[in-house]
Amino acid sequence: MKQTLLYLFAFLLLLQLAACAAVDDPLPSWKDGPARGAIVSFVEAADNTGSPGYIPEAHRIAVFDNDGTVWAEQPAYFQLFFVIDRIKAMAPRHPEWKDKEPFKSVLSGDMKTALSGGEHAILELVAATHSGMTTEEFENDVRHWIATARHPTSGRPFTEMVYQPMVELLGYLRARGFKTYIVSGGGIEFMRPWTEATYGIPPEQVIGSSLKTKFEIRDGKAVLVKQPEVGSLDDKEGKPVNINLHVGRRPVAAFGNSDGDLQMLQWTASGGGPNLCVLIHHTDAAREWAYDRTSHVGKLDKALDEASQRGWTVVSMKDDWSKVFPSGTSER
Amino acid sequence: MKQTLLYLFAFLLLLQLAACAAVDDPLPSWKDGPARGAIVSFVEAADNTGSPGYIPEAHRIAVFDNDGTVWAEQPAYFQLFFVIDRIKAMAPRHPEWKDKEPFKSVLSGDMKTALSGGEHAILELVAATHSGMTTEEFENDVRHWIATARHPTSGRPFTEMVYQPMVELLGYLRARGFKTYIVSGGGIEFMRPWTEATYGIPPEQVIGSSLKTKFEIRDGKAVLVKQPEVGSLDDKEGKPVNINLHVGRRPVAAFGNSDGDLQMLQWTASGGGPNLCVLIHHTDAAREWAYDRTSHVGKLDKALDEASQRGWTVVSMKDDWSKVFPSGTSER
Repeated sequence: MKQTLLYLFAFLLLLQLAACAAVDDPLPSWKDGPARGAIVSFVEAADNTGSPGYIPEAHRIAVFDNDGTVWAEQPAYFQLFFVIDRIKAMAPRHPEWKDKEPFKSVLSGDMKTALSGGEHAILELVAATHSGMTTEEFENDVRHWIATARHPTSGRPFTEMVYQPMVELLGYLRARGFKTYIVSGGGIEFMRPWTEATYGIPPEQVIGSSLKTKFEIRDGKAVLVKQPEVGSLDDKEGKPVNINLHVGRRPVAAFGNSDGDLQMLQWTASGGGPNLCVLIHHTDAAREWAYDRTSHVGKLDKALDEASQRGWTVVSMKDDWSKVFPSGTSER
Repeated sequence: MKQTLLYLFAFLLLLQLAACAAVDDPLPSWKDGPARGAIVSFVEAADNTGSPGYIPEAHRIAVFDNDGTVWAEQPAYFQLFFVIDRIKAMAPRHPEWKDKEPFKSVLSGDMKTALSGGEHAILELVAATHSGMTTEEFENDVRHWIATARHPTSGRPFTEMVYQPMVELLGYLRARGFKTYIVSGGGIEFMRPWTEATYGIPPEQVIGSSLKTKFEIRDGKAVLVKQPEVGSLDDKEGKPVNINLHVGRRPVAAFGNSDGDLQMLQWTASGGGPNLCVLIHHTDAAREWAYDRTSHVGKLDKALDEASQRGWTVVSMKDDWSKVFPSGTSER
């Protein structure tokens, strides 16, 4: 009996050792190369108390732009498709929209004319679809849309238009004690309903552009009502400003893909300790889209020059990723 | 040898069992009574999947006002003493203050005259002490002050003017899967440097009033500079608005002590599921201070009526707490 127990004990010990040895590659969609190398070196050092690159766990804050960095942003920011679908769904209650721009053109499918009104037209569309309701009603609008809408060229749900290598990277960082944040020019309340299921990032770690809200008592219940007034634009200088407001610490790792992310990367790079600044470069016309210096969406120009001057890591989607989207073969 | 190993194994098992049985009371400074009872019942149910009061862990958001709820607020909000001390420390670099109100009166120790200028005077003092520097420089100012300053009547460090029962409650909630937040009218960057060591609450779980910040490149480094312009006042309606902005979820437990916390409690109470709303009532003139409906600092009037109508929990510091401050016997 005692003998049996000891054998059992030894067997369990061996199982444990085998499990430790068989740890899978946490980044299977990243090819070997300088980009993967820079990321892994930084993370391994940050999590190693004996390394000069060690970072105490409380300071392991990693920030990720969303559009074009963690999910795609072509042929337009995905939130625009939400706006269009909401305008169509709300149209029966707004007969006046049939004769009123920019709504008229949205309803007839002519987005070029709809957006020809510039910033004013966009604000009108955002106000119509993102304000007047309570925060909970808006959350329900987003949940319904994200569960049913399809990307215009791939036909896939938008939550399948995420970059598989970046989802792996988010998990790898969290496994090494990093706290991961989304810091996006997109709407904070547009992202929060689905980031936890899609990226493993809870609502309180999502930072974005916002409309103001107003406290009201409706039918005896306290609610917050979304107002047609901008609270914060989370782009360019707005990104470090909002990270400081929400997190209260300077990040040590930042990931972006456009000039809108430049100030967030500069602020991360200026922390004085070990840091990792990464740009995702859209170089893969076959599997995704290829664009940079002259693109209307996700323009990457100044930040690309600064990355080269400062030695930041530039990820080529074509060369550094073995897979782009989770579905794999068909790609976009 | 084998025999020895087995005895060792059995001994370790017994140690483990003993440790489990000897769990201490997590709330030793709370007397038995309806307040403690309401808190413990809510928390135990929230953490019990079989209970109708069960709350999924992701929704266990607990928000705490700071001044008068987790630390004291008499004879004035503690941040005012920081302002006074900073004005004195900065005075040699500002000879013009000797002849200029409200600075002149602050320097001569006449706070009544200094504050007679009302909101404008306060904003001038806040701007002088809270803007113009980088966020990191301000953090250093706060760290130095909190480590050296003393409360005017007790002579103790301000971080020892915290309520021992509330510190125990924060730990108890976290042990039961709650995420604890400070939501204060005080300055967000005034609190963040010390809440982790004092309350176990990291900077990213501190919400407060804020000044705007501006992104700048100084000496080739990216920094955020504090501006003499209010970003947000985290009081009354501002509390639920900011909780929604920072957390993105409605809390299930809220703790306050004044009318400035009423809307935060109303919003928490209107969530539709199990919730706990608590007011700390300052009833103990001997160990702390006794004040409520007519107090200038921490006025508790409307919220006390609403607590009574809605059946919220009201904690009497005199009757429900066996100890007020961590130091115990001497009290204030």
